[in-house]
Amino acid sequence: MSQLKIDDRLWSIKARNLSPYVPGEQPTQASLCKLNTNENPFPPSPMVATAIAQALQNQAVNLRLYPEPESDSLRQGLATYHRQHGITPSQVFVGNGSDEVLALVFACFFIKDRALLTPDISYGFYPVYADTLGVEMIKIPLREDFSIHSDDYRRPCAGIIIANPNAPTGILMPLSDIHKLCQEHPNAVVVIDEAYIDFAQNEHDAQAVVSAISLINEFDNLLVVQTFSKSRSLAGLRVGVAFANVSLIEALIRMKNSFNSYPLDRLAQAGALASLSDQPYFEQVCQLVQKLRQLLTDKLVTLGFDVLPSQANFVFAKPPKTLFSGDASVLAQTLREQGIIVRHFNQPRVKDYLRISVGDKEQIQRLIVTLYDLIKS
Amino acid sequence: MSQLKIDDRLWSIKARNLSPYVPGEQPTQASLCKLNTNENPFPPSPMVATAIAQALQNQAVNLRLYPEPESDSLRQGLATYHRQHGITPSQVFVGNGSDEVLALVFACFFIKDRALLTPDISYGFYPVYADTLGVEMIKIPLREDFSIHSDDYRRPCAGIIIANPNAPTGILMPLSDIHKLCQEHPNAVVVIDEAYIDFAQNEHDAQAVVSAISLINEFDNLLVVQTFSKSRSLAGLRVGVAFANVSLIEALIRMKNSFNSYPLDRLAQAGALASLSDQPYFEQVCQLVQKLRQLLTDKLVTLGFDVLPSQANFVFAKPPKTLFSGDASVLAQTLREQGIIVRHFNQPRVKDYLRISVGDKEQIQRLIVTLYDLIKS
Repeated sequence: MSQLKIDDRLWSIKARNLSPYVPGEQPTQASLCKLNTNENPFPPSPMVATAIAQALQNQAVNLRLYPEPESDSLRQGLATYHRQHGITPSQVFVGNGSDEVLALVFACFFIKDRALLTPDISYGFYPVYADTLGVEMIKIPLREDFSIHSDDYRRPCAGIIIANPNAPTGILMPLSDIHKLCQEHPNAVVVIDEAYIDFAQNEHDAQAVVSAISLINEFDNLLVVQTFSKSRSLAGLRVGVAFANVSLIEALIRMKNSFNSYPLDRLAQAGALASLSDQPYFEQVCQLVQKLRQLLTDKLVTLGFDVLPSQANFVFAKPPKTLFSGDASVLAQTLREQGIIVRHFNQPRVKDYLRISVGDKEQIQRLIVTLYDLIKS
Repeated sequence: MSQLKIDDRLWSIKARNLSPYVPGEQPTQASLCKLNTNENPFPPSPMVATAIAQALQNQAVNLRLYPEPESDSLRQGLATYHRQHGITPSQVFVGNGSDEVLALVFACFFIKDRALLTPDISYGFYPVYADTLGVEMIKIPLREDFSIHSDDYRRPCAGIIIANPNAPTGILMPLSDIHKLCQEHPNAVVVIDEAYIDFAQNEHDAQAVVSAISLINEFDNLLVVQTFSKSRSLAGLRVGVAFANVSLIEALIRMKNSFNSYPLDRLAQAGALASLSDQPYFEQVCQLVQKLRQLLTDKLVTLGFDVLPSQANFVFAKPPKTLFSGDASVLAQTLREQGIIVRHFNQPRVKDYLRISVGDKEQIQRLIVTLYDLIKS
């Protein structure tokens, strides 16, 4: 992409100065063991395909007609799904994947005189949004153990954005810390990006709520982002969500309608709505991924990896020095040659680590056997 | 929406100052005669539903996996479709509806020291994008007969954007004028928004090419936007396209990847691609709409309407003074009460007009009978 000479004649300065996000590779070869973009190893609920097939047949939801511009049915479905937290449809916003939701969040709440605070190691798209939209950003270092503490964010700011569980570390921040952040920053929007929250559990009480959605009606400055891509196995359908106070949702709707009025097509709306109705399947998939995460962790530890305690559907692991010289990108490359793709981030503090998505049993087996052979040889 | 107090505490100034686009009403009542948002009265090719159903069943295109980030298969399909103009995949960009494509176009090419030129009466989203992105815009008045002439655009500018056929007038600008615009503005991107081009015909030669895609390889400053929403009856699927020189497409890809990496879901990509392969159906639908447009025009003229010569799938028509007092919004409201929705624009020069989408025979019949009864009463 960068081989092209940037066009000084026709591009705007804005276009010339961009540093676009580089998503993980999406290879088309099916034989590859794809553990690089945290997709769910299990398919979505069968109800999703049924609902989409119905939408295709049903004259009333004909593709020739525009979709619901504000995805009202889906917003209603999400409010009902989270009714135990008193969420109403006007506290819900949906967008074309959580990436689009996040871009709109940056445009609505972070273009201010003060800087946005975010962990130094987190989702790689945050600095790209900041750059694109002219948002000043201060990176707060993670603690030595890669954890996030609300105390480190005690300074004036335009807002705070934290992925929880954090990516690529997988570490979960307790709800009490989010509570503190919201309380201590009444004039700043606190965004908790919960892309992976459904795979998380409170370490002391497996039944305890871990999602900050439970705090929405307590703090008008809290905004929680979620996605259908991970726990609901719908990365291919592009549906992201924000939960917040009515006023913040109102801002997102206005910003959306200043860019693109209909970001979710009819089939995506129908499919996402259907996935909410299959709770037993959803819980089963999340539990399976948690079990497989434990299996992957145990196997990696046995091989000498240093694995961070993950609450997501990936692990962040440091290979033993017997496996590679230099940074972990060498090992990533070796695995790539053997048909296994994992993600390496060429960044200080984490360049010795690999982020490995939790695959199914077969994929984990293939990875472990390959690593075992590499260690032996 | 505006009932809410704009939040001075948490919203950015940008969010507070927006004037979002207001799309045409999307009612959920099926009994309404919906002639307000220029949807195609005919369904998409049956191949679309077949391809989507296949994509749903096929393990290789599973919804759990991210879609192709750059929609490469669809870009390839579009290049092949337009091969008579020598279009290559790297000259094609696809986005979430042409609205998203246009937003990215504004961000890439129009944020400059000079102003963007656009007709004073055109697509209502253009001033919204300009406003959102800080683009200065000069509106060039349409001629007395609502036509656009390239001579009126002969001044220094950041770029030019023209809908062709124009909306809401439906009037087509000849290709020779677009040729002139590109030639006279080598340092500005000329955007031709061809949402309705497939319904257009050269008035002297029905076989002649009317799309500016034919000029892409002649002018590196020309960018043509099209959509699957109108002629391909896929408003519900959200697929828009841009054709241009490789460098302009490159800028759009960079801008897209600075906002949202995966704007088109798997099903939208599959459905759009399939619609390209059913050329006989496509041609049949476009011809039918052209015939119905003539029917609608003739009937309205008989009733005393002043109808502009439309090359789109809508007509822009001024009702006779016997039908209403005040501006045409009164008649729009009367029709609304009878279950027929058309579009009125409360703007100087056009407030006496209504934009009426070309419906099917039944819808046209219903509209005409209702108007006839109104005139009689």
